[in-house]
Amino acid sequence: MQYPLPIAHLIDAYMKLPGIGEKTATRLAFYTMDMPQEDVEDFSKALIQVKKDIHQCPICGNITEKDICDICSNPNRDQTTIMVVEQPKDVMAFEDMGEYSGLYHVLHGVLSPMDGIGPEEINIKSLITRLQKHDEVKEVILALNSTPEGESTAMYISKLIKPAGIKVTRLAAGLSVGSDIEYANSITLKRAVQGRTTL
Amino acid sequence: MQYPLPIAHLIDAYMKLPGIGEKTATRLAFYTMDMPQEDVEDFSKALIQVKKDIHQCPICGNITEKDICDICSNPNRDQTTIMVVEQPKDVMAFEDMGEYSGLYHVLHGVLSPMDGIGPEEINIKSLITRLQKHDEVKEVILALNSTPEGESTAMYISKLIKPAGIKVTRLAAGLSVGSDIEYANSITLKRAVQGRTTL
Repeated sequence: MQYPLPIAHLIDAYMKLPGIGEKTATRLAFYTMDMPQEDVEDFSKALIQVKKDIHQCPICGNITEKDICDICSNPNRDQTTIMVVEQPKDVMAFEDMGEYSGLYHVLHGVLSPMDGIGPEEINIKSLITRLQKHDEVKEVILALNSTPEGESTAMYISKLIKPAGIKVTRLAAGLSVGSDIEYANSITLKRAVQGRTTL
Repeated sequence: MQYPLPIAHLIDAYMKLPGIGEKTATRLAFYTMDMPQEDVEDFSKALIQVKKDIHQCPICGNITEKDICDICSNPNRDQTTIMVVEQPKDVMAFEDMGEYSGLYHVLHGVLSPMDGIGPEEINIKSLITRLQKHDEVKEVILALNSTPEGESTAMYISKLIKPAGIKVTRLAAGLSVGSDIEYANSITLKRAVQGRTTL
């Protein structure tokens, strides 16, 4: 038996979300029917608003609902350091940490030739233009994920920037705080030994 | 750091769905930003449509987008049998089975005094009225879940209907097809023995 059309449509819509299969989508659709009218209207509007009002900051590529994002437009941020990250969520993570006061540059991805993602597909060009325009930048921190793609993107950007005499750093690799040596993989252990510090 | 407002709103909206916590809601909100404009618009509309167009059939209480549901308005269905179920999803399950050609009555819940759900909160009154109006009904099948609430709701309805001389039945209880006796609980085994059939 077919579900009534409006329900079938909503099930299809939920199924387009990641990690939601037919069973969960059906459960969510039935739940939606019983939700207060107001909540469903808010939900419906929030979906449209997020597409309409959120765009990339023209300077750093982070997501914002303003012309220029809060970080780029804040004169109190350290204008000499730019941290390059993969995703807007990484900016949130570093801001929550509260120790970093410089600027960011969000790539929106990493180089992955296998998936057809080359330098043109991510925000690398805008980073180079930005460094050319603002010669007060003294350091670029490559805060990319410790994946093969993250590492090779870091190498690629490093090679582009270094000739300009800008300091390029990357995050320390090593044991996670609170983790067991027993369960660490050998590459992590190798990095931890290489990067050992004196007490 | 706060997310831009439109994203924060969408995260809140996703969090109102069952089984979706803050992490998943955030992942879904970021995913939504990258979805095609058209898909997001469809999703937004589907939410509103399901609230607007879906209502309960005034006869059986099943969900439908029509004035009277497809089953109640089908003269080829067996008008002498009504199957009482808890939820619209149960109707779908029995229709998918394909062996039942009678009518349905959807309670939209079960009696549960602990949660403040009495006979007035579920579609019991409309069932009684329906039986009084249509004396061609010869059998009411109580297809409620095998839970304490389901069982007591079945008992309650049975007591209301039986005096009118209508046959009241309930689904057979026993081992699930394909299941192991070893893992069946003792109440299921007791029911399976009580309801044994000759070969």
